[in-house]
Amino acid sequence: MTEFGFIESLRNLFATLPSNGFEGIGDDCAVYGLGNDEALLFTSDTLNEGVHFLRTEATPEQVGAKSLMVNLSDIAAMGARPIATLLALSLPADCPEGWAESFIEGYRSVAERYGVPLVGGDTTSSLRGITINVTAIGRAPESHIKRRSAARSGDVIFVGGVLGGSALGLRNILDGDGDTAAAHLHHAPQAQVAEGEWLGAQPCVHAMMDLSDGLASDLRHILVASKVGAVVNVEQIPIYEGATIRDAVGGGEDYMLLFTVERSGVEAMRRQFAERFGYEPYAIGEITESPQPEIEWREKGKTFYPDWRGFSHF
Amino acid sequence: MTEFGFIESLRNLFATLPSNGFEGIGDDCAVYGLGNDEALLFTSDTLNEGVHFLRTEATPEQVGAKSLMVNLSDIAAMGARPIATLLALSLPADCPEGWAESFIEGYRSVAERYGVPLVGGDTTSSLRGITINVTAIGRAPESHIKRRSAARSGDVIFVGGVLGGSALGLRNILDGDGDTAAAHLHHAPQAQVAEGEWLGAQPCVHAMMDLSDGLASDLRHILVASKVGAVVNVEQIPIYEGATIRDAVGGGEDYMLLFTVERSGVEAMRRQFAERFGYEPYAIGEITESPQPEIEWREKGKTFYPDWRGFSHF
Repeated sequence: MTEFGFIESLRNLFATLPSNGFEGIGDDCAVYGLGNDEALLFTSDTLNEGVHFLRTEATPEQVGAKSLMVNLSDIAAMGARPIATLLALSLPADCPEGWAESFIEGYRSVAERYGVPLVGGDTTSSLRGITINVTAIGRAPESHIKRRSAARSGDVIFVGGVLGGSALGLRNILDGDGDTAAAHLHHAPQAQVAEGEWLGAQPCVHAMMDLSDGLASDLRHILVASKVGAVVNVEQIPIYEGATIRDAVGGGEDYMLLFTVERSGVEAMRRQFAERFGYEPYAIGEITESPQPEIEWREKGKTFYPDWRGFSHF
Repeated sequence: MTEFGFIESLRNLFATLPSNGFEGIGDDCAVYGLGNDEALLFTSDTLNEGVHFLRTEATPEQVGAKSLMVNLSDIAAMGARPIATLLALSLPADCPEGWAESFIEGYRSVAERYGVPLVGGDTTSSLRGITINVTAIGRAPESHIKRRSAARSGDVIFVGGVLGGSALGLRNILDGDGDTAAAHLHHAPQAQVAEGEWLGAQPCVHAMMDLSDGLASDLRHILVASKVGAVVNVEQIPIYEGATIRDAVGGGEDYMLLFTVERSGVEAMRRQFAERFGYEPYAIGEITESPQPEIEWREKGKTFYPDWRGFSHF
């Protein structure tokens, strides 16, 4: 849900203002140091009807759950724990009776699961279409915070789970089959909230973000910020059953974690992760020293040149 | 921009979740104590095209300035200093070339005036209509924070400036005369940001909020939260030139501060306020002991019963 060019122009336009203790724009969240190795993190995202969800396809409970989940994912993607959210809901005159109440039920179910209170709420009218804005606040020891700029040459690249399910699900929905498991996953993504906080506490984890725009596009953000390159072995990319490699690499909204790990820490991290969460993350390649922030795609050891880089979120 | 009933229902629905150190819903901002008498404050507001502004009437610079100003007003209304904002902008396909850039210019002009950096930005597409969401973060010593619940019987009620200008301006605009001073004020409200922070530091100031829905409606929020009543002398209400008492009492979006002051502190506060800001706030009545959170309206000492209470924002 990010237009990189706009964000860049904002960063430049506001560069002369005082920072007031905040780190500038560039990561999933803004970071505010509190001293004593503690920091707060902030992120704000909008979901618009007709763009991010269809009222005819997604239930209000699903929209409520998803709008909170994607924001918790941003907090977790920097290694922090979400501690509160604010919700601003804009409803048009034709909004069905009870929609907002069911939306809140879905929102609340996720809030309860992660113990995240709603500390501010606002509702307004909209001319047309439902608009949802969620601001999430997180907290972490400063030393746990994972930035996109922290990847180092030699790091192993991991993804937290299988990719492409959301893109497949969206295709199912657009094809009129909204009842598949993938379609359900698209409507109700499961962010790796606990995993993100846990990975934050592992010093061997260097860079981290969540996959909202697709691996090809998101990994490039890490490469640009860290001034490195990457080799990705496509046969190691975990693909959702029935999805294609294009779904996995170019599809958006999987909300799995993407992170790089110092090679010496990989085995212990992998074992402890599995002990804690009951499954293993997937190593898909490694960070390389490179003058260009490019991904070298390899299939069974052979470099090839797919047209994946241009993919963006849909 | 608040539907009180919805906020109330949210408060109840989320009451069983852990607070994580946040004060519950009810004031202009959520409050998060940092310890050592320091706290952060959070507020989030949405402006929708066709509801909160008309693209044909307001320039993008005005919309940008106003969308930030109303959020800074919420921070100031609790006695805090704004320290950062996040912006989420949703733009439809028919948004004119350059609209977003001009919007940002207006936003930036206010951000620069108050030294408030933009620390997070996000832009998305909307199906129709521009939607703007701003999250503002403030900071204050915990002891400076003014809550709606702190009014005490005997307090003098103040408003920070003349009222009704925004309502008159909106009427001008709807009548096709968008070139009046009042219309300009409606498009470009001036919140009392520095005044709010200064009043926060005055222990004699008890309750405070900003006037976004009109005096009759907003003062009642203080009375309900503080479990008190009020007497307001209508001839003391400062009215914008050309506006009516109805505009001043029932009109919204004036963004002046409404605050109550312990009687013994009134004279010193008034003098120091004038020294600091070059003008005086207006005493309009007093807080009374009352079993009902009712406003008693008086004209030249005589109680009367106007039909003002039902007014809400338009």
